[in-house]
Amino acid sequence: MPNHADWSPEALRGALEQAAEWTIDYRRRVGELPVFPTVEPGRVRRALGDHPPLEPDPFEGILADFDEHIVSGLTHWNHPGFLAYFSSSTRAPSIVAELLVAAVGVNAMLWRTSPAATEVERTAVDWLRQAVGLPPSFSGLILDTASTATFTALLAARELAGTRVRSDGLAGGPALAVYTSEQSHSSVEKSALAAGLGHRSVRRIEVDEAFRMRPEALDAAITEDLANGVRPAMVCATIGTTSTASVDPVEALAAVTRRHGVWLHVDAAYAGPAAMLPEQRGRFRGWEEADSIVLNPHKWLGTSLDCSVLLYRDVAPFRASLALTPTYLESEDDETDLMDIGLALGRRFRGLKLWVLFRCVGTDGLAGTLRRHIEMAESAAGRLVEGGVFRLAAPVSFSTVCFRAATAGADPEAEDRWNRDILSRVNAGGRSFLSHTELGGRYVLRLSVGSVHTEERHLDEALEALHRAADELSPGGPG
Amino acid sequence: MPNHADWSPEALRGALEQAAEWTIDYRRRVGELPVFPTVEPGRVRRALGDHPPLEPDPFEGILADFDEHIVSGLTHWNHPGFLAYFSSSTRAPSIVAELLVAAVGVNAMLWRTSPAATEVERTAVDWLRQAVGLPPSFSGLILDTASTATFTALLAARELAGTRVRSDGLAGGPALAVYTSEQSHSSVEKSALAAGLGHRSVRRIEVDEAFRMRPEALDAAITEDLANGVRPAMVCATIGTTSTASVDPVEALAAVTRRHGVWLHVDAAYAGPAAMLPEQRGRFRGWEEADSIVLNPHKWLGTSLDCSVLLYRDVAPFRASLALTPTYLESEDDETDLMDIGLALGRRFRGLKLWVLFRCVGTDGLAGTLRRHIEMAESAAGRLVEGGVFRLAAPVSFSTVCFRAATAGADPEAEDRWNRDILSRVNAGGRSFLSHTELGGRYVLRLSVGSVHTEERHLDEALEALHRAADELSPGGPG
Repeated sequence: MPNHADWSPEALRGALEQAAEWTIDYRRRVGELPVFPTVEPGRVRRALGDHPPLEPDPFEGILADFDEHIVSGLTHWNHPGFLAYFSSSTRAPSIVAELLVAAVGVNAMLWRTSPAATEVERTAVDWLRQAVGLPPSFSGLILDTASTATFTALLAARELAGTRVRSDGLAGGPALAVYTSEQSHSSVEKSALAAGLGHRSVRRIEVDEAFRMRPEALDAAITEDLANGVRPAMVCATIGTTSTASVDPVEALAAVTRRHGVWLHVDAAYAGPAAMLPEQRGRFRGWEEADSIVLNPHKWLGTSLDCSVLLYRDVAPFRASLALTPTYLESEDDETDLMDIGLALGRRFRGLKLWVLFRCVGTDGLAGTLRRHIEMAESAAGRLVEGGVFRLAAPVSFSTVCFRAATAGADPEAEDRWNRDILSRVNAGGRSFLSHTELGGRYVLRLSVGSVHTEERHLDEALEALHRAADELSPGGPG
Repeated sequence: MPNHADWSPEALRGALEQAAEWTIDYRRRVGELPVFPTVEPGRVRRALGDHPPLEPDPFEGILADFDEHIVSGLTHWNHPGFLAYFSSSTRAPSIVAELLVAAVGVNAMLWRTSPAATEVERTAVDWLRQAVGLPPSFSGLILDTASTATFTALLAARELAGTRVRSDGLAGGPALAVYTSEQSHSSVEKSALAAGLGHRSVRRIEVDEAFRMRPEALDAAITEDLANGVRPAMVCATIGTTSTASVDPVEALAAVTRRHGVWLHVDAAYAGPAAMLPEQRGRFRGWEEADSIVLNPHKWLGTSLDCSVLLYRDVAPFRASLALTPTYLESEDDETDLMDIGLALGRRFRGLKLWVLFRCVGTDGLAGTLRRHIEMAESAAGRLVEGGVFRLAAPVSFSTVCFRAATAGADPEAEDRWNRDILSRVNAGGRSFLSHTELGGRYVLRLSVGSVHTEERHLDEALEALHRAADELSPGGPG
């Protein structure tokens, strides 16, 4: 019996060549595929079969099955008409980097378990820090997602705010509270649940008319909690909220957290990279006062999933909350062992794709893409409202536009249905994929530009589809 | 200004060809590289430079820098002499799968955000379940690492054991406890810290002479806690502990957890795949009674990092502890939205590499590799003790051997130093990489076979280096 049924170098070369050609072809034709698939639940599973094969299949047939049964059932995040959520498209160099990451297959849990993987990660994170203009007092690492980064920051904040949390746990200790705006991402709430603080610990601070957290409301909430014996653990401000990409007034919020001695975390997962643009830098004022910041290169910068950068000013509370070094992993190396910051022990070599991206595109190229996306979004917003059917539901922020079809004197409920129908029809067309949100209790359409593949013509197409759908589906019913 | 500084199809083809050739060449020559690099902390960072480039660099130069400055500083997890920790080598098909994952770049957070990604994941997980002989009542998903999987299980268990944890948090509630053996992985302790249970919540249950948790000690600990008003949240049993690969008596432990109504989690991260072998199946007796099980295809099965499978019998407590569906992600689809199970919202298309592995290797091929590794480890253990210098420090279990150089009447402290020196010398040789652990307070050497690249001759080489080092470094000092 052979040691393993692995491939010969020739077989690997053949498979890589086929996969590479498939990749190039996919990027060429993805714009012609329906961005959201028409597939009923369970169809892909049935096509794949019920049982694993006993014997190897040739790669050619597997690739054909992948193309026929799997790719036809994907939502194409790399489609140029993908304007939903926040985009997470993949720049070409990141694909090549992922191949190299898989080739070396190292585990960056300790410096010792792959010194260069830790050092590339720290280099790439520091390059990003410089590119977005944060001071050298910040360092950090790469986690999978912003949810994990925010959770990790909350554990550090919990340790500082609580009483002997690491040793004694939360039971028997004081109640802790987390503050974030009504508009912040669900990951803040989920982090509080996971951290054992409970749903009740989350204070949803009210926002102003532009969906920005009100500093005086934050101050009042903290003051009230303190009076009631509740300890404030963390404030999470957002630069680029999920619904409208609004920007919390971080400088004013930082003054509040500083006064009360509360941890300030900034969620800049989507918008963070825009700090590379001098003309946008002002929107980030105050974030250098944060204790921790998360930004996701796998969103707007175009590294593939997953690549979420957590930056912090002081590593000590992160280590205090979680670091454990079992005997079988003890080492005498000086460099940071990144597994001590965060929950996961095994760590992919995520730094490589960010480093490759900087090298292959350059900061000017990266910034240019962001600038172009913002211009496209602003231009699209202008043309959206020109027709008189759509109105902006929030100020355009970064590359995100919230809007709603509206007619004078219409019933808001009927208008909600109208907008819902418009979205369904546009998305069913397969050429554009938009999402929705809720603002002030109303159903709102949402378009966010952030894909490396999106050009003006794809926005033209989306706008045309929106106007056509709004026209055909009048609020009174199908036209 | 162009929309983006991304590559043309020709540039992508050229870079993929170079990276593919590099990959094939790396797999050919990795056995000739020192498995653990000689690199002082900071050298790689200095070589990469302080600042990100403004302008793009040609890929050829970047690949050359990668090879010269980064690869020379890696610990080579795909080296055939990698016998440390638990192996995490990469089968060739998994490399190709990662290329395809990066090419499509989808996010499997909701069924809707990529239906096929969710369905491939569920198919691959079910194939693994069948392969290891677990009943169809188990389903699951893929997370990054076993630490995350165990943490996720603990959150579900915490919800069931506590009092309104999701809504009210742990403060004010009863103290909870987690039970695991003295030999279990640090991730259990880390999970308890992250979950807010505190270090004090972790009961390290004593083990027998073969490093297996004692069921009667577990029963006594739970009984004592209950008498003191402490609520047992979870028992974590291990099949294949980190130090010795020992197997907790899961059937007997399950009887204890059933009697007390406590969640049983089984950590089979390393050894789980061995349940594919009929001759090993008996060692897994009782694991079908667990509430949750983790096994890592990225360890012994040869998918690339990261691929950790969490199986559970009932999804409800997982959803109860964490599920949140914000408006902007609401959908009306029936299939499971996997982001509701676990902390991370964004999810890589990890199912593909496991599916590709099953298709490209087949269950017979996968099982054959595991069987061969176990035979190699048993054979190596036999030859190790033959020379009279080394003694087994634990029973050989699966493909893991714990041993120690020992001489009659020697001072144990001096013997510890001797073993430490032996390990340093062998690892410095660059041909084999072993690790160590502590058993009964003594320093113990550890060899684990699990790489798809390791053949008999690599074990011969490691054994020869061990015997030579033991000979040259007598306990009395350098020979």
